[in-house]
Amino acid sequence: MVQIERERPARRRGEGSARDRRRAQRAAASAASAVGPGLKGGSFRPLSERDMQRIHATALDVLEQIGMGSPTQSILDACLPKGAVLSESGRLCFPRGLMEDVIDGACKEFTFHGTNPARDVQVGGDRVYFRTAGEAVNIFDYATRDTRPSTLVDLYDTARLADRLDNLHCFCQTVVATEHSGDAFVHDINALYAQLAGTQKPCAVSTATADHIDHFIALLDIFLGGEGEFLKRPCFNFGGCPVVSPLRFGSENAEVLVKCARLGISYDIAVASQAGATAPAALAGALVQTFAETLATLAVMNLIRPGIPFLMGAWPFISDLRTGSFTGGSGEQALVASAMGQLCNFYGLPSSVSASMTDSKLPDAQAGYEKGLTAGLAALAGCNYIGESAGMLGSLMACSFEAMVIDNDMLGNILRAVRGIEVTDETLSFQSIKDSVEGVGHFLDHPQTLALMESEYQYPQVADRSTYADWRDRGKLDAYALAHERAALILADHYPVYIDPAVDAAIRERFPIVLKPEDMRPGNGRW
Amino acid sequence: MVQIERERPARRRGEGSARDRRRAQRAAASAASAVGPGLKGGSFRPLSERDMQRIHATALDVLEQIGMGSPTQSILDACLPKGAVLSESGRLCFPRGLMEDVIDGACKEFTFHGTNPARDVQVGGDRVYFRTAGEAVNIFDYATRDTRPSTLVDLYDTARLADRLDNLHCFCQTVVATEHSGDAFVHDINALYAQLAGTQKPCAVSTATADHIDHFIALLDIFLGGEGEFLKRPCFNFGGCPVVSPLRFGSENAEVLVKCARLGISYDIAVASQAGATAPAALAGALVQTFAETLATLAVMNLIRPGIPFLMGAWPFISDLRTGSFTGGSGEQALVASAMGQLCNFYGLPSSVSASMTDSKLPDAQAGYEKGLTAGLAALAGCNYIGESAGMLGSLMACSFEAMVIDNDMLGNILRAVRGIEVTDETLSFQSIKDSVEGVGHFLDHPQTLALMESEYQYPQVADRSTYADWRDRGKLDAYALAHERAALILADHYPVYIDPAVDAAIRERFPIVLKPEDMRPGNGRW
Repeated sequence: MVQIERERPARRRGEGSARDRRRAQRAAASAASAVGPGLKGGSFRPLSERDMQRIHATALDVLEQIGMGSPTQSILDACLPKGAVLSESGRLCFPRGLMEDVIDGACKEFTFHGTNPARDVQVGGDRVYFRTAGEAVNIFDYATRDTRPSTLVDLYDTARLADRLDNLHCFCQTVVATEHSGDAFVHDINALYAQLAGTQKPCAVSTATADHIDHFIALLDIFLGGEGEFLKRPCFNFGGCPVVSPLRFGSENAEVLVKCARLGISYDIAVASQAGATAPAALAGALVQTFAETLATLAVMNLIRPGIPFLMGAWPFISDLRTGSFTGGSGEQALVASAMGQLCNFYGLPSSVSASMTDSKLPDAQAGYEKGLTAGLAALAGCNYIGESAGMLGSLMACSFEAMVIDNDMLGNILRAVRGIEVTDETLSFQSIKDSVEGVGHFLDHPQTLALMESEYQYPQVADRSTYADWRDRGKLDAYALAHERAALILADHYPVYIDPAVDAAIRERFPIVLKPEDMRPGNGRW
Repeated sequence: MVQIERERPARRRGEGSARDRRRAQRAAASAASAVGPGLKGGSFRPLSERDMQRIHATALDVLEQIGMGSPTQSILDACLPKGAVLSESGRLCFPRGLMEDVIDGACKEFTFHGTNPARDVQVGGDRVYFRTAGEAVNIFDYATRDTRPSTLVDLYDTARLADRLDNLHCFCQTVVATEHSGDAFVHDINALYAQLAGTQKPCAVSTATADHIDHFIALLDIFLGGEGEFLKRPCFNFGGCPVVSPLRFGSENAEVLVKCARLGISYDIAVASQAGATAPAALAGALVQTFAETLATLAVMNLIRPGIPFLMGAWPFISDLRTGSFTGGSGEQALVASAMGQLCNFYGLPSSVSASMTDSKLPDAQAGYEKGLTAGLAALAGCNYIGESAGMLGSLMACSFEAMVIDNDMLGNILRAVRGIEVTDETLSFQSIKDSVEGVGHFLDHPQTLALMESEYQYPQVADRSTYADWRDRGKLDAYALAHERAALILADHYPVYIDPAVDAAIRERFPIVLKPEDMRPGNGRW
């Protein structure tokens, strides 16, 4: 294939020379970037407007006529006075008019804060952000090419890694610190701490119980420099699954929902039904039920605190009906996630979906295409917040550092596709074409080419675009091996000090922080 | 995860029993299939209508004011009397009104025939078909995990394999028989023969020169049982690249174009410009130029034979501007291919694009996500004929049997996404949800679930959806290893006899067929 002429040292310097002009253009271009956070999706529309209206209408029927089982007392206290109705069988039903009011009054846009304001993201519209998530209980280990139970240090390391992966805009708990699974409080407070120490991007931590929230806030207030600071500018989301499908509240997490609503902070939910198992096998029906379940949580939040920031975490999952097991990488999964994002956005409700899951056990070709299709469609549909975006393997059973690096490149390609094609007088390029045809017969050093080098094109970090000869010279490495090199390089080097040592001491004095300082600096033997 | 209750042997048989009903439903469902050829795309729309109109208008400006260089005498003879104009610099210009008439009168739909009519495909509208293509000069060898020069037998083997991969609807030359590259006629006639012997799907063969066409037709007439039979129902396309970008006819292939036009058969072209090298770096400009170049070939065909079947083989490729080399797997590539398909379809012109290319050297995670995104978007945009769909590696430098098998599964996922979500009273599932909530609390053996098991869900052939425990038990295989098992199984077994022995003898008597009969039956030592 053709080669661009390399820039040689200038032999003369003259103002206005073609070479100077080109160099200036190239310098200007290199300051630009082809992709970034918050690009506008929406070019993929799996559902027609009529489809969306019908799904929405049926979801309102479900909420009005079937309702939600197992409402807690605090949910009843919040909803019954506002017009919700308790059925004879004890289910909480939401009349259509009430739900329409809730949707009308719901928050349409809000900011997720990073601990560094430069990392803030503006959720809403069709803007697309990728984040990790998954809470796997295993790390896929490069050395053994197999899983091992994940630890707190792994969570910290994935946070540090994500901090340096440009196409991940937010962080959410990748793995569980399984060595602390016997003590929910130690686990949860350390999961929060590990993220705070590892990245400045907007974070989210799950909590087993509403009681932990006050402690989270106390810790974050110390970090932010004073009581009440966290609620002024929440830089963490607390998350969980307040719904048990089909159509039932889960008691523990429902209390977290109520607690967050009372505090006025968003609760990062995942309503993870499974089509063919805990939701209808018909994809449209799975959308109806999951949308209804998520609207129920939206209603509880808004009936307690109208207009509260809230992400519609409607995550219909897919079953392989031959075995009944969850399949995260299927074409059906790509469809329902992107359709759900489109549906939420259509009603102005900020959307959270899960994509880039795979059923493959390791970062291989299957993992690649399953992730590429599911994350690609979710993003092009304009889903606002795309979780599980990087690193997940084996139907969410494991996370891999290498997969995070590979997926980051993939997300760059996807974001480039989301950005789309700008059609302007200049980009239509009539004059460039004429110049080339009447001139040198190619576009290699046309000023337009040099000017667009960085702004029109997205370059991967590790993806191999070399020749077969170069690939052989480098040892015939696959993406997994290349990603391991990159992950190891970042993890050996990037030990940020995002928590001031004095503040850290204050946090450690008050909370049972078990992440050791020696694990948070180079030379710890891990990388 | 949940397990579906397995069907146990019935203990009693009673007409109308729930179990019998379920069994009948399951049997009916298993006759159905979730995906197939010709599904309607169009849910991904990278360009707005206004964008398409502007690209189209600028392409017509280019054809009118810049025109095509190096027109051959036969092209001039065909086009000048119909209103095309030769410029002072010897370029063939197409006035806007002429081009508008050509587009209006162009064939909007046609049939690509298989040698078995059951394999015919109906090209046009937004219907999506996948096919192989690529003409790589290497096979990626599983044993050595490296490339070796491809041979005629490899071409035959890829045809046999494609014959058994359901999501590949057509076949086009995967690899070059490099051992015959010194004799173009022997190469081309054997490339045709190898496909005829290996698959009944619609095929395409490239030809170096127009002189070969008569021989192709003579061979196919023998195969089909009489002189003139091929032209009655063409079961092969002849292909090539009649344009050298930017905006110039390639003399040899332009003669094939003219020859096919005179015969009234489609010519399967690939106008493969490269953004930043032989086309503008601005993606919109690359679309303009490539669309114009392809419209020029459409014009030549239609000015010779109005309404001739013709695929708009507009294949803008992307450069990595850091090196100038072609990158087939980029996000930009996904965009321009799908945009081009959308653009052609918008003007009613059957579209052919290339996707599922990758820059990775082997079937790894990078290959997976690059293929998933590029092929996925092309299909969702409704591109009619998606070439390079399976097997290609290393920026089209190699083909892999294993990659063909992996990609076939991927194409199944993509086709499922193309099919979309049917929204009907039944699929909205209000009643199923009510049944489940008021009854057993799940959907595992709901009649709807059993009825939709095969028709709503697409199942992969080799993709791993097992647990980590099962994966370990099976030897921790990745997709590449699993695909090798499947490819070897098919290739050891599937030696179809699509050419009747008597006909074969007649063909071999007249043509220099070098594919040996012993290479076309089991026990040849290859698989």
